[in-house]
Amino acid sequence: MNVFGDKWTFTSFGESHGAAIGGVLDGVPAGLHISMDLIREELERRAGKTENKSYIVDSVNRKYIVSPRALREPDEVEWLSGVMSVSERSERSVSETVWVTPESGLSGEAGLITLGTPIAFIIRNKDARPEDYEWLKHTYRTGHADKVYEQKYGIRDWRGGGRASARETAARVVAGCIAKQELAAKGISIHASLIQVGAETDPDKFAETIAAYKRDGDSIGGIVECIITGIPVGTGEPVFNKLQAELAFAIMSINACKGFEYGTGFGGVTQPGSAINHISGGIAGGIADGTPVTFRCVFKPTPSTPKALVHCTSSLGTSGVQPVKVGRHDACVAVRAVPVVEAMTALALVQFL
Amino acid sequence: MNVFGDKWTFTSFGESHGAAIGGVLDGVPAGLHISMDLIREELERRAGKTENKSYIVDSVNRKYIVSPRALREPDEVEWLSGVMSVSERSERSVSETVWVTPESGLSGEAGLITLGTPIAFIIRNKDARPEDYEWLKHTYRTGHADKVYEQKYGIRDWRGGGRASARETAARVVAGCIAKQELAAKGISIHASLIQVGAETDPDKFAETIAAYKRDGDSIGGIVECIITGIPVGTGEPVFNKLQAELAFAIMSINACKGFEYGTGFGGVTQPGSAINHISGGIAGGIADGTPVTFRCVFKPTPSTPKALVHCTSSLGTSGVQPVKVGRHDACVAVRAVPVVEAMTALALVQFL
Amino acid sequence: MNVFGDKWTFTSFGESHGAAIGGVLDGVPAGLHISMDLIREELERRAGKTENKSYIVDSVNRKYIVSPRALREPDEVEWLSGVMSVSERSERSVSETVWVTPESGLSGEAGLITLGTPIAFIIRNKDARPEDYEWLKHTYRTGHADKVYEQKYGIRDWRGGGRASARETAARVVAGCIAKQELAAKGISIHASLIQVGAETDPDKFAETIAAYKRDGDSIGGIVECIITGIPVGTGEPVFNKLQAELAFAIMSINACKGFEYGTGFGGVTQPGSAINHISGGIAGGIADGTPVTFRCVFKPTPSTPKALVHCTSSLGTSGVQPVKVGRHDACVAVRAVPVVEAMTALALVQFL
Amino acid sequence: MNVFGDKWTFTSFGESHGAAIGGVLDGVPAGLHISMDLIREELERRAGKTENKSYIVDSVNRKYIVSPRALREPDEVEWLSGVMSVSERSERSVSETVWVTPESGLSGEAGLITLGTPIAFIIRNKDARPEDYEWLKHTYRTGHADKVYEQKYGIRDWRGGGRASARETAARVVAGCIAKQELAAKGISIHASLIQVGAETDPDKFAETIAAYKRDGDSIGGIVECIITGIPVGTGEPVFNKLQAELAFAIMSINACKGFEYGTGFGGVTQPGSAINHISGGIAGGIADGTPVTFRCVFKPTPSTPKALVHCTSSLGTSGVQPVKVGRHDACVAVRAVPVVEAMTALALVQFL
Repeated sequence: MNVFGDKWTFTSFGESHGAAIGGVLDGVPAGLHISMDLIREELERRAGKTENKSYIVDSVNRKYIVSPRALREPDEVEWLSGVMSVSERSERSVSETVWVTPESGLSGEAGLITLGTPIAFIIRNKDARPEDYEWLKHTYRTGHADKVYEQKYGIRDWRGGGRASARETAARVVAGCIAKQELAAKGISIHASLIQVGAETDPDKFAETIAAYKRDGDSIGGIVECIITGIPVGTGEPVFNKLQAELAFAIMSINACKGFEYGTGFGGVTQPGSAINHISGGIAGGIADGTPVTFRCVFKPTPSTPKALVHCTSSLGTSGVQPVKVGRHDACVAVRAVPVVEAMTALALVQFL
Repeated sequence: MNVFGDKWTFTSFGESHGAAIGGVLDGVPAGLHISMDLIREELERRAGKTENKSYIVDSVNRKYIVSPRALREPDEVEWLSGVMSVSERSERSVSETVWVTPESGLSGEAGLITLGTPIAFIIRNKDARPEDYEWLKHTYRTGHADKVYEQKYGIRDWRGGGRASARETAARVVAGCIAKQELAAKGISIHASLIQVGAETDPDKFAETIAAYKRDGDSIGGIVECIITGIPVGTGEPVFNKLQAELAFAIMSINACKGFEYGTGFGGVTQPGSAINHISGGIAGGIADGTPVTFRCVFKPTPSTPKALVHCTSSLGTSGVQPVKVGRHDACVAVRAVPVVEAMTALALVQFL
Repeated sequence: MNVFGDKWTFTSFGESHGAAIGGVLDGVPAGLHISMDLIREELERRAGKTENKSYIVDSVNRKYIVSPRALREPDEVEWLSGVMSVSERSERSVSETVWVTPESGLSGEAGLITLGTPIAFIIRNKDARPEDYEWLKHTYRTGHADKVYEQKYGIRDWRGGGRASARETAARVVAGCIAKQELAAKGISIHASLIQVGAETDPDKFAETIAAYKRDGDSIGGIVECIITGIPVGTGEPVFNKLQAELAFAIMSINACKGFEYGTGFGGVTQPGSAINHISGGIAGGIADGTPVTFRCVFKPTPSTPKALVHCTSSLGTSGVQPVKVGRHDACVAVRAVPVVEAMTALALVQFL
Repeated sequence: MNVFGDKWTFTSFGESHGAAIGGVLDGVPAGLHISMDLIREELERRAGKTENKSYIVDSVNRKYIVSPRALREPDEVEWLSGVMSVSERSERSVSETVWVTPESGLSGEAGLITLGTPIAFIIRNKDARPEDYEWLKHTYRTGHADKVYEQKYGIRDWRGGGRASARETAARVVAGCIAKQELAAKGISIHASLIQVGAETDPDKFAETIAAYKRDGDSIGGIVECIITGIPVGTGEPVFNKLQAELAFAIMSINACKGFEYGTGFGGVTQPGSAINHISGGIAGGIADGTPVTFRCVFKPTPSTPKALVHCTSSLGTSGVQPVKVGRHDACVAVRAVPVVEAMTALALVQFL
């Protein structure tokens, strides 16, 4: 239910307005070096913020876009187990086989080393303002999971979505970033980028397109493309666990994702076999063929906008439209989905190694 | 690798030109009645054939289309375990709790009853003509998995694709049809239909569109839409095992499938949140909301056509284009994928019951 | 439920009096050579028979014991998928990488080669004599699973036990023998032997001890010891999936097994730490330490004896003792459990490779 | 590796001398009330301490025994997610379906309510005294996992055992206590008790027996018996996932456990079938038969004693005996294993519900 993968097993936990969110990543081999800078950077991408108030949406072409939403406090990862800082290690280990050499230039500040045991981490929830959500106490928002949660569990945390909140994806980003570093060590790289916002396909115009929807109190969807290079020939299984099936499973589990395609995708339907036969998308019969794997996924507009939420229904069963209040809103969640797409891709791929 | 699901566990086996293909379906409760007629009908849909030489591609609107490929011998299912014929049962059971009454009108001919034990079945491979594949002995076909199989396993069955052959989907159809009958007993129905062939969206013109590509020695892709009704509110899990993620995993595991979308899908990217906020596609936050679940998937054109296979490469490492011979070819595999989409949807859904 | 393991996934199926029993073994690498002679020999050990009417119970010291039960027809394995005969292979493969050389001296008669795809096999049920079980139609046998099966499934196959029959273990022996050959290729050997029958611990007296109980219309239990050599240091996981926990799970799943112990076992309870501290049983902290792993398991006497079955109860709910009829009976099932212990040990170990 | 179960999935993490140990329990239904008093009590049983400096070893007959080891600070559980305090709930939920009535008399102090989301908790490691372990830096202790850990992972935390430390079982006790409360709500109770210490079987003499070994600088093993009542008929699966196999797997994963038996166990080997045929141990054919399930397990003496550790080896590869220093030692770990046996039994059983 909240566990992903069977080789690198990632367990995600935490409510958006509880004490903390976090995760446990089990199966990571001992001796992997983890850069804390990279994890911090990925969390900032997901939070829609970097130091200079803008952030990378296109990690291949290094296009930048101004963040649509400022975060007041950065997410800080607290490590509970499974790692030790590099400086601590030299004291700790008695093994003669020292795999971290002075030449590698690591300092305790910069990095962690995995122990081969489960890596547990948490991110405390600061910045919780329950009063912002007071109006939701008796309201089911259209396009949200408010109602189905209450129907499924008999209880609903109305203060921000609970497990359905996109905040949960921060834990995925941390775990995925560890996976990405293992993949990088094996020569595999993952690059996702936003390639479309609404009808706009020019990245340089994404910021203004989003800003226009935001001013209008509305929101818009986007398409993210992801390219995996260096993936070994033979990765994937021929029948059920095809590489594309595992990627689709991972990506479709991201909030607001409505579709997944690879290679010729949906657009290829109008092309005859003789024209597109040679386009594999990097996968043949479920198995990586050695060329880059390319897939795309689409994210719907957020429903939490002043314009969209007009027609909420009452959770008390009373008729009539509910009062709606929306503060800051994210006009294009696809922007912040980019690092999450990379994270889930990485978590899907490490299962095959 | 060849096992699908963890509640109803389906194991698929068999090479396309070995002794048999088949499967084991474990986890099916005791006492489910299985109609053999339905299984036969589904296998004929998959084989592209019915008694009157045409078959149903659109199970909702009952549109018909002439089969593009005739099968010489029907697939016959041999049941090895887990079921007994209805007539046999009355002799076999000593339980006072008899759930099959004479009034229910079942005969040994018509049906089987499950025992709660693993259901194993095989379909013998008749009609194997190795000489048809002789030319493939030293050839990797473009768009096929020939080369990656040899790279992954160090061996390749060149006589028809082995596990990569679409023949494997016959076992999925048998297992899926059992799942469908359990779902039907719970009020859940699954209807897939072909909604697009190439650029054509009028079902009445699909047959001639496909025939035109066939005459041209070419092939074309298609889009299948699937509608699930009666699915209980609350089906699905909120984080990784979202209903859409499990469906995408199941569907993307079908040969030649290049994309999956639900609800507003890729097309919704140009619509603002205020316009499409109310379209859930039957799923909110990963959980069924009680409305019909609608998804679409796209199938690429088969690469095994006279026109498409011109540029094969040699598996012997010699340069130059290989001799190509294609006999009967399936100009639009999306047609025969329709019952497989239903089968995999059913297998995905029973895991949640 | 009927699936064992997650790397080498073994699915077992078949009722003792249905069409066939069998299994599917998924995850076996391509290119493993399987000796059919070894499989035949193992099945004969399990069936309590070899060519010279006696069979090996102690595979280390090669002690022999006369079989307490003759089998009229040998179990014949029919291979459905995942393998081809060695002679067939040279025709079949087009790969230049030929791993079977003429020098290896294999003939089509002697062996099979795995393809890397699921290996499916069946053993047809011959020799079914339903009339032998007629008296069981309305009887629950003491010490058997007759009653709980009917309570759990609402139906019971009274003709020989269905899935509860020890006949199911023949499929385990086939799959385990494949696993054993993979282990042997890695230098790991598994040797189980009967070390106690009743109070008797001298193997040379086991046959007469068993014969005495048989004459008396009674039965007796036995203890099997298993020694694994060559297991790599580091095999096993430190917390839940300790090597001893996985072995216990595998062994305790064998019919009639009532206990598992390793190293100092139950007998060690009276010894102080200072005396037995050095005895690891081959495992430290759940992880193989490089010394031979030694475990023991105990099998209860069969309850199907003239003397033991006196007090059966009626499945019709009527009071009174039921008529009891027992033909040939197996006075010590521990004898035939020996190859099953080896098979389950092998299946448990291959999961760690 | 560090994940137990597939319905109630328990992930354990934490090194004995890291920041914290803890766990995540996924799959627990919403609305379960958890008594924090019970969890505290179980943790104190495991720590070998209660308020009055003695504790229950026999939960059925309420026999007491003086704790052999005092804990300076109690283990405090910090809840991170998946639960809320009862008083908080009334504010939080907007559901009309209130399942906690005023009559149930719960206060925020006393209890927690589950949300249906993953329950994450940690126990911070206080009381770490690395200097106590300084002598272990270059020493492999006989009977410990020191050496195999270093061989398996290439690194070893010599300050207390890391994941091999019995401290990890505290997380099991917390998770198991939640499982136990779900089981109790369904009428299932689990009672483990120490039934043998060395050769002694009179519980009233256990304390003095242990004290004698302690004075002697030595240690002794013990046998724990566990009785499960109220388990529904039909629990368990007939082939691989037999109830006894799942229990054995759970119990054998506990540190220092060397054997598992149920029903007639090893002792039954000398009894003829006619004498013990009626003793099921609560399980027939792998399935609970409605009578109490009774099993026993044996724990070896701790190897960490002044007398036992004389012959340690050097981890530096130098020859000669290492200096040995043992402070407080636990002369009979079987005492503290009792609540861990209950916890693992509970975690095994909830998988079947």
